Amino acid sequence: MKKRYRLSEVTKQLVLVASGKEKADLVIQNGTLVNVNTGELLPHVDVAISHGRIALVGDASHTIGEATKVIDANGLYIAPGFIDGHIHVESSMVTVKEYAKAVMTHGTTAIIMDPHEIANVLGLEGIGMMIQEGKEIPLNVYTTMPSCVPATADFETTGAQLSLRDIAAGLKQDTIIGLGEMMNYPGVLNADSSVHNILKATLDRDKIITGHYPAPDAGGAGLNAYIASGARCCHETVRMEDALAKMRLGMYVQVREGSAWCDVKEIAKALTTTSIDSRFACLVSDDTHPDHLITQGHMDHIIRRAIEEGIPPITAIQMATLNTAQCFSIDRDLGSVSPGKWADIVLLEDLDTIKVAMTLINGECVAKDGKMLCELYTSSYPDSAKQTMAIHETLKPEDFIIPIPEGYNKETIGIHLIEIIETIATTHHREAILPIKSGTLSSDLSQDILKLAVIDRHSGLQTMGKGFVKGFKLTSGAVASTVAHDAHNLCILGTNDEDMALAANTLIECGGGQVVVQNGVVLALNPLPVAGLMSEDPIEIVAKRVAEIDEAWKTIGCPIASPFMTMALLSLAVIPELRLTNKGLIDTNTFEPISLYIEA
Amino acid sequence: MKKRYRLSEVTKQLVLVASGKEKADLVIQNGTLVNVNTGELLPHVDVAISHGRIALVGDASHTIGEATKVIDANGLYIAPGFIDGHIHVESSMVTVKEYAKAVMTHGTTAIIMDPHEIANVLGLEGIGMMIQEGKEIPLNVYTTMPSCVPATADFETTGAQLSLRDIAAGLKQDTIIGLGEMMNYPGVLNADSSVHNILKATLDRDKIITGHYPAPDAGGAGLNAYIASGARCCHETVRMEDALAKMRLGMYVQVREGSAWCDVKEIAKALTTTSIDSRFACLVSDDTHPDHLITQGHMDHIIRRAIEEGIPPITAIQMATLNTAQCFSIDRDLGSVSPGKWADIVLLEDLDTIKVAMTLINGECVAKDGKMLCELYTSSYPDSAKQTMAIHETLKPEDFIIPIPEGYNKETIGIHLIEIIETIATTHHREAILPIKSGTLSSDLSQDILKLAVIDRHSGLQTMGKGFVKGFKLTSGAVASTVAHDAHNLCILGTNDEDMALAANTLIECGGGQVVVQNGVVLALNPLPVAGLMSEDPIEIVAKRVAEIDEAWKTIGCPIASPFMTMALLSLAVIPELRLTNKGLIDTNTFEPISLYIEA
Repeated sequence: MKKRYRLSEVTKQLVLVASGKEKADLVIQNGTLVNVNTGELLPHVDVAISHGRIALVGDASHTIGEATKVIDANGLYIAPGFIDGHIHVESSMVTVKEYAKAVMTHGTTAIIMDPHEIANVLGLEGIGMMIQEGKEIPLNVYTTMPSCVPATADFETTGAQLSLRDIAAGLKQDTIIGLGEMMNYPGVLNADSSVHNILKATLDRDKIITGHYPAPDAGGAGLNAYIASGARCCHETVRMEDALAKMRLGMYVQVREGSAWCDVKEIAKALTTTSIDSRFACLVSDDTHPDHLITQGHMDHIIRRAIEEGIPPITAIQMATLNTAQCFSIDRDLGSVSPGKWADIVLLEDLDTIKVAMTLINGECVAKDGKMLCELYTSSYPDSAKQTMAIHETLKPEDFIIPIPEGYNKETIGIHLIEIIETIATTHHREAILPIKSGTLSSDLSQDILKLAVIDRHSGLQTMGKGFVKGFKLTSGAVASTVAHDAHNLCILGTNDEDMALAANTLIECGGGQVVVQNGVVLALNPLPVAGLMSEDPIEIVAKRVAEIDEAWKTIGCPIASPFMTMALLSLAVIPELRLTNKGLIDTNTFEPISLYIEA
Repeated sequence: MKKRYRLSEVTKQLVLVASGKEKADLVIQNGTLVNVNTGELLPHVDVAISHGRIALVGDASHTIGEATKVIDANGLYIAPGFIDGHIHVESSMVTVKEYAKAVMTHGTTAIIMDPHEIANVLGLEGIGMMIQEGKEIPLNVYTTMPSCVPATADFETTGAQLSLRDIAAGLKQDTIIGLGEMMNYPGVLNADSSVHNILKATLDRDKIITGHYPAPDAGGAGLNAYIASGARCCHETVRMEDALAKMRLGMYVQVREGSAWCDVKEIAKALTTTSIDSRFACLVSDDTHPDHLITQGHMDHIIRRAIEEGIPPITAIQMATLNTAQCFSIDRDLGSVSPGKWADIVLLEDLDTIKVAMTLINGECVAKDGKMLCELYTSSYPDSAKQTMAIHETLKPEDFIIPIPEGYNKETIGIHLIEIIETIATTHHREAILPIKSGTLSSDLSQDILKLAVIDRHSGLQTMGKGFVKGFKLTSGAVASTVAHDAHNLCILGTNDEDMALAANTLIECGGGQVVVQNGVVLALNPLPVAGLMSEDPIEIVAKRVAEIDEAWKTIGCPIASPFMTMALLSLAVIPELRLTNKGLIDTNTFEPISLYIEA
């Protein structure tokens, strides 16, 4: 891959090219500049590039020599490459390389990646693998150090744990520009020393604390306290008034538009119904499914969404370029088409649909008309990353039996169960009466109550938590997944124990992933052998498998949207109201384990 | 002095105060917030402060305890403390402490100081003294490392020289946040290795390169090359079109309004005649005379000037707060009234005159209604700083004789001479015919031609350059100054050799300064014993002396404005067209020494 030069290495070369004494490697000629510095469109602008950096913006005719490559931008807009300021690559279920392939064709030239998911499975080793991959591709990959691994250590068996020492060591690395989203905002607000020590380690390195503050207190004491602790940005903002409050308090609001959460519609109002300075507003994706990256795009899609909601195009582009660069203090290298910056540039066909004609990174054309032009070096994950299913015995249907407490001899029993809310992360804590059959409890399709199991796949002890869930409306079969936030244990739900065992065993065998089975037959399988989270296959293939999985959910009766996404949060024991981990049911209102049985 | 806490030291305390679990040290109550983050005025805002930092902005009633001091801001505006992004304290002829006293009463809470003048006299030692002074006062003093000391080593004897190694060592210090104005823009544009090595040393430390690019090329190759070399800001912009070009290229334009150069009127048009994003526009003072600090003010005056020129008040305040903080990447600590930032705050009576009612720094009230409230610790410069007149023999009138070349026997001779342009830094290179009297040349008042001498005061060799200058229109007497950019040698001009010797000897005796004499009598003396540039006396006294000097200039016949300022540039051998140093006349168009005599 072409070397990325630090500015300090090439100031002389840039001067020589700007003044015409040496010639540019590449000149983009005669486009309309989307000037994010001043918020203007400037016609008939050339950009001269040398050593991967911008030497001149203006009239570059004197920088063109015989060997200079010239790109005619007549009729096109020249804009800075798009930056995604908060993204979990693992959510796209592909490697960083494959992710990059998808997003570079859509104009993305830099991402700020939070490898929180792999960190929960493989710890520092996993983070290191993704960082290494990021170094081997043209996409400019910055990393934030996951701050909350595990999300909760008390209630489940986790794959890894990042100590203060681990985090502090990570923050020494140049590619790690900050701390990953500080989800433990209760810990911040309670002045918890272990949490504040992590903040301190970040601030003392002069790096960025990225925030996660979902509480809707519109500028009250909590938000003030959280920002006073150093959190510089936040992508968890779903109400306009909270967005306004955050920007007013000097926090960068990272307006999110991913596959799961789409906040642009609401948050855009903070800009369109006021006349505030928009410099603290950014756009991010957070999590995007592979098929959406292919069909909708990435930051181009999010910018387009912002424009659709009434934000002026140049402002929307600032929100995905300069503003994000300033948020992360990387504006000396990127965020605008200006002399000295990296030549990370997109050519756009128009400013309504933000159709990307060409993406340049480090002064090289990496994608044109939606097609990759550069070769990506193969990066393959080591075997250790693909051996994360520490479940060594094949599961039998009997393993899923839920017995009745000893001495209990009635015909029914009251239970606690989880009720999901379609496309919403929180759950309801419900109660129900289940019939007892042969001294055990089974799924009760008449009540839409399905058996749910979570198996530790990390420690080798393979402890299993069992419970019930309502809302998926399956009529047959079972599903299993190793994408199960945040510990990513093996999660299985189904209508019968035989299919549940088959689903679990299928994933154990392929190293993790997602599977749907019905009556002893695998309907669809999406193997994700890297940490049980990611595939090394091309994103198009993974996207196709995800579509097959979605289809198979429907086949077994599930009518809701993105059911795997909802399923992936059933174990997340930090969000209300009830969750199941490998250690059993957790009341996440009281943060106490509770029994499955109401009475015994 | 009260300790300034790093944010990392106090996040827990700020959280406890914001949430009301502990009480604030100070609460500013019920003011109208000038919110520079969003560009809004927000009424009825409180600010809670603890450990010198802002814990909460909003409703702070729950943070008020018995020991909490409360400031009623009803009817007042709460704004961030003003930041001067480019300032040579020495130009105010007082110590940093005295400078701070003057500016803090006018709402300034931080300065970015470039100790370029003292560096030319005392080198690293002098810089260190001013930095040390800055650490002993509440004003937040950041320093940039002078980049061009001496301005020219070939044409004059200088007091000090900063090598690449010196500069690199300086850049290691925390208080040095960047490189001082890179005046050697020809060296930058010529890809001069010694210059680019200095840029590299700065960039490799991730610090800011402050610029100095006066060429009026409105975005041409030169400006592009200069910015591509890493210069992040520039205070040398006198035309609107150059200001626009710089901002468009991502350079922070530091609009200057000092005693000597007043650029706000012209540059404001870049904002008032367009609708550009103003985030790259800042306000700075560069150089301000002591009397102006007292009578006009400091950043409050410059903000007022910007408002008078049509810039909206909030935008003007952003230009002296948030924008400058972002320029220097110090926005995590200051630049806005936001949680976590230092409580560097001004209370304003209105947004038209920007009348400062109170200045708070580090959470303490330092000035109120134009009066200092805090005690400033005495900092006295060491003797070594006050012994910079290495001229060990008393000068005699004969030392100023300008003889005629041997063998020359006509009655007149043609000479090269400097013609000054009132209040303009450049000079004209003129020719004239002088009568020869007793084999020597004298001042010729009939032609307004005065004798000019520059004596090395640094090396001990006390070499003297002699020549003539036109434009001061003296009718009697002589003046001398050790403020003579950039080497600050002893510069004397006068109508007769006796008064010139007296003027010179008066300054030699008092350790440097400014003096006006007439017919053997000292009319006015402004002793500047610290490096021959600064007084340790109170600024009011120094200002009074400056006024007396100005008056004395008039007494001896000079009608032009600020003549000492024009005189102070007569030796600056890097600005067109002709200059005199201790080594003789320098043609600063060709950068060659030239003879005084046209023919011999």
